[in-house]
Amino acid sequence: MIVLDGKKTSQKLRTEIAKEVAEMIDNEIRPPHLVAILVGDDGASQTYVNAKEKACQSVGMTSSVYRLSSKTSEKELLAAVDFLNNDPDVDGFIVQLPLPKHINEQNVIERIDPAKDVDGFHPVNVGKMALGLDCFLPATPNGIIEILKHYQIETEGKHCVVLGRSNIVGSPISIMMSQKKYPGNATVTLCHSKTQNLAEITASADILIVAIGSPEFVKENMVKEGAVVIDVGIHRIASTTTESGFILKGDVDFAAVSTKASHITPVPGGVGPMTIASLLSNTLKAAKISRSI
Amino acid sequence: MIVLDGKKTSQKLRTEIAKEVAEMIDNEIRPPHLVAILVGDDGASQTYVNAKEKACQSVGMTSSVYRLSSKTSEKELLAAVDFLNNDPDVDGFIVQLPLPKHINEQNVIERIDPAKDVDGFHPVNVGKMALGLDCFLPATPNGIIEILKHYQIETEGKHCVVLGRSNIVGSPISIMMSQKKYPGNATVTLCHSKTQNLAEITASADILIVAIGSPEFVKENMVKEGAVVIDVGIHRIASTTTESGFILKGDVDFAAVSTKASHITPVPGGVGPMTIASLLSNTLKAAKISRSI
Repeated sequence: MIVLDGKKTSQKLRTEIAKEVAEMIDNEIRPPHLVAILVGDDGASQTYVNAKEKACQSVGMTSSVYRLSSKTSEKELLAAVDFLNNDPDVDGFIVQLPLPKHINEQNVIERIDPAKDVDGFHPVNVGKMALGLDCFLPATPNGIIEILKHYQIETEGKHCVVLGRSNIVGSPISIMMSQKKYPGNATVTLCHSKTQNLAEITASADILIVAIGSPEFVKENMVKEGAVVIDVGIHRIASTTTESGFILKGDVDFAAVSTKASHITPVPGGVGPMTIASLLSNTLKAAKISRSI
Repeated sequence: MIVLDGKKTSQKLRTEIAKEVAEMIDNEIRPPHLVAILVGDDGASQTYVNAKEKACQSVGMTSSVYRLSSKTSEKELLAAVDFLNNDPDVDGFIVQLPLPKHINEQNVIERIDPAKDVDGFHPVNVGKMALGLDCFLPATPNGIIEILKHYQIETEGKHCVVLGRSNIVGSPISIMMSQKKYPGNATVTLCHSKTQNLAEITASADILIVAIGSPEFVKENMVKEGAVVIDVGIHRIASTTTESGFILKGDVDFAAVSTKASHITPVPGGVGPMTIASLLSNTLKAAKISRSI
């Protein structure tokens, strides 16, 4: 059994990105600049934004965070988006989700200039992804693609089962895995809460991608011997065995499933680090396109 | 076995559309206006455009066709698109595909104002479709949805197998059938040229949607007893038994498969007529949105 090491793989991607950024700086080109808008004081969101900021700095990119009060109105947030759309010093930006309930997330996402939408959430980017056109791919699905590529996992003609149909992970990765390219060309089955005989379907998967948001949902009996298992979930579970008082678990029962899988991503250190590397990669791409490099 | 009658179902939709158009006219509101741009003299394209024009007239809509020479440059075609984008008397328009080879189809599609893109091919509409947002749904997948709805076919939790991953049929219908609504909520498997054990997979389908572009490709052994079979293909096959010298066949061997299916669409008279009804429905929708009705 091979552990698909997202930390190591993302480090390799980051090194490549850092090299390109360094070249830009050497050529007296301003390094890529990523801005994150953070509305309110959700703890998890703060953690994510901090991690993104640190990642930018680690590859030599410029990073800024706009911290707005939880009382920010939708109109004010849209004005901030307009400002960043028009700021030539900003190559890409993200609005950290979720937003406070009084703000319509879709309105905000659709206001972002697709050329700066490094999260790949704007309908134009989602549409281009679905059509197989060049675009900003959403970070988590793209992170999965990159890890499959890094470990040279064969995907053509394989049965890929995706568990979970969210707009940010399950649905886009199901589309990407069925497209005519590598990684891709798989026969993809998308499963969700209404799926019948779920264990039977997952047990037929050569590649199983789990993004269902339920701790250790996938048990040993749901996995085929030799399957490649990608675990997108991340959950804090209270624990007396650690100093922090919690441990991190994925959507897959790692201890049990890893005895059957040929390859499996751990949690933490699997898909998570890949997601941030994808965001950096999109930011570099935005900077290169806007400056015709 | 029930034949899913697309002719009758589309007639019902058209009657509803005609009623709404008549009400617009009664209220002294200009009826919806659909324009088709036809470049060159491809025979099949001319047939399709004529059918769309006739369909518009049958429901009281205004219809125009811009017939451009096959030598039209991409620049000239883009200028025509711009003109229609800005013409307040045009509610929706389509550019009949395929275009001559010297024109980049994607450039043309992306130039269409998404608010007038009644074919639903612009990345914004594709993205909104993938995200489950309100948009112009592509005509053929939407025609399939409408026929399933009309015959009250149960889809929730069913295994829906889609054969063919084209951007205009297979890929979008696979997305739509997996979404959280009716018809939808199915467990969807998307199959294509790289799929292994194809017959085994199709034979496990409760609902089989075939858009593979190969005459009578789906045989009896590939279909489960009691399955719902939707045939998107349409092929002219030379024949000495008809006056016209050809007969129309679908992607499914109707004679053989209809003995096993619980429901099946015929060719012709199945998905085809539904596709045109969907286009009319999108045009009515565009007219209503642009006039805030």
